[in-house]
Amino acid sequence: MGYRIDGLQYANWSQKVFRQMRQGGLDAVHVTIAYHETFRETVLNIERWNRWFDEFPDLIMKGRLAGDVREARETGRTAIFFGFQNPSPIEDDIGLVEILHDLGARFMQLTYNNQSLLATGCYEDDDTGLTRMGRQVVAEMNRVGMVVDMSHSAERSTLEAIEHSTRPIAITHANPAFWQPALRNKSDAVLRALANSGGMLGFSLYPHHLKHKSACTLQSFCEMIARTAGIMGPERLGIGSDLCQDQPDSVVEWMRVGRWTRQIDYGEGSASAPGFPPMPDWYRDNRDIGNIQTGLRDAGFSDKEVAGIMGDNWLRFFEESFIPGDPP
Amino acid sequence: MGYRIDGLQYANWSQKVFRQMRQGGLDAVHVTIAYHETFRETVLNIERWNRWFDEFPDLIMKGRLAGDVREARETGRTAIFFGFQNPSPIEDDIGLVEILHDLGARFMQLTYNNQSLLATGCYEDDDTGLTRMGRQVVAEMNRVGMVVDMSHSAERSTLEAIEHSTRPIAITHANPAFWQPALRNKSDAVLRALANSGGMLGFSLYPHHLKHKSACTLQSFCEMIARTAGIMGPERLGIGSDLCQDQPDSVVEWMRVGRWTRQIDYGEGSASAPGFPPMPDWYRDNRDIGNIQTGLRDAGFSDKEVAGIMGDNWLRFFEESFIPGDPP
Repeated sequence: MGYRIDGLQYANWSQKVFRQMRQGGLDAVHVTIAYHETFRETVLNIERWNRWFDEFPDLIMKGRLAGDVREARETGRTAIFFGFQNPSPIEDDIGLVEILHDLGARFMQLTYNNQSLLATGCYEDDDTGLTRMGRQVVAEMNRVGMVVDMSHSAERSTLEAIEHSTRPIAITHANPAFWQPALRNKSDAVLRALANSGGMLGFSLYPHHLKHKSACTLQSFCEMIARTAGIMGPERLGIGSDLCQDQPDSVVEWMRVGRWTRQIDYGEGSASAPGFPPMPDWYRDNRDIGNIQTGLRDAGFSDKEVAGIMGDNWLRFFEESFIPGDPP
Repeated sequence: MGYRIDGLQYANWSQKVFRQMRQGGLDAVHVTIAYHETFRETVLNIERWNRWFDEFPDLIMKGRLAGDVREARETGRTAIFFGFQNPSPIEDDIGLVEILHDLGARFMQLTYNNQSLLATGCYEDDDTGLTRMGRQVVAEMNRVGMVVDMSHSAERSTLEAIEHSTRPIAITHANPAFWQPALRNKSDAVLRALANSGGMLGFSLYPHHLKHKSACTLQSFCEMIARTAGIMGPERLGIGSDLCQDQPDSVVEWMRVGRWTRQIDYGEGSASAPGFPPMPDWYRDNRDIGNIQTGLRDAGFSDKEVAGIMGDNWLRFFEESFIPGDPP
């Protein structure tokens, strides 16, 4: 054990980034491959990943099952697991859940900030919970082995997803609202329900989710994790850095605006700071992941708890989550 | 050994047909899942198969590797391997070869009668061989482990595919032209080149490919196989029945016409007989496959040769063909 797993990244992928994953000793990374993409556009993104797997076989490998994390460790590579931050890749077709699972997708958010066909996003005024299709898709995701991710969803929708899902769900990248009251961060009620159902929280390093944003200290971040462990237990926690390394600001605009509006939506930014915020100086990219390990020790976690939060908890969750389940 | 494998069918799939596969003792069937479909339409067809696998787990299972044929035998089921009779599912995008292989596609014809982006079909006046994209796609199919199938291709294109492919190819469903001089049947030159490269020929039971069509006798069919064994060797031969059971005549029209013409094209039929021809009385459906085994024995084949033609040769070919190869 003692794996290092990042529960979410959306970098501008390149040989440089893959090398930095290796320098950071990351055994696995859940990468976002779709924000607003249609099915066909998502497949084009998978094709691009196929070329990277072919081009950099010494750095990365495709991850399908938890065992691939172990194979990656043994062969000195990083296993890449696919996920979507929006259900747009399945369009209006529940059959695409199994198709995309077959192509490697292992996580799907039911919403990305806005209302979707499945649930309500965290930026909407009213949260109507899981839709009719949403309940069907959660059951189908349970059946094929695709994790429900509610990182960008609203409170009621999140609680209903936890309740309705027969398998534990994840919030791959968010922090507790008690520490930084962002719309994207989660209430104590959500954290408790998530932990009680066996789900996982990945702590985000995206500055808008951090106390004092880019100026957040490692000590404050790790003390927040310790406090969250008091609510959820240390075994339900991991890292989901939300690293958007090397992305041009046009990408954060695509993430926020997609094709759903003709106006600019600044999301967690503002007109005066519309771009990606600078990362905290103790986590600039994948090479710095070890700093968090040090910070967790300093915050009083045991070696076993630190190992769990750095990756072993995600690995256990992967083991439970990616194989097909019993039919609903 | 002693497997029963059908190298091509396009039935109107149903529980009835799957039960008849079991009654015929078929361990594996290569099924056509696309004639003129786009990528998205092909995915819809895969989704329909996913529902059948889910609905009839006691009768059929998805085939991905040769070992699945053995698992099917051990569990009393038929392994279903996907193929396309046209390259339309990859559209103009070579990256879709790997995507569709990941979704289970194991055979793809480079053409269906007409000129395609890849090669020339057997109904065109002029045969220009493999196109620029055709050569690239053959190399990509070799890389990922998808079999090049030239059943509906013209002579020069077929010879060039055999030559250009670094892995053995297949003609899954056709007969020798020496026996029945149909445009779809193959010359001695093609049969020799196919055998010399380690490829496979599946004998068709579609009446337009048979001597005396629907009135063809089992004896004539098996004597033709014996004569072909003299050219190709018995280990390069299998069955590819081209069974189109329970299909309405609208389907043979779709096969011939697709969306490429506003006129009716009768293909191998005629204005007076535009529909599916009746099958010979000794092979009406999957339950009759054993008759061919008997006929082959009567034609003088040894037990081992009969077992090879009935399925063991296809199984050996599956073993060689479906796993990724060395990069070109």
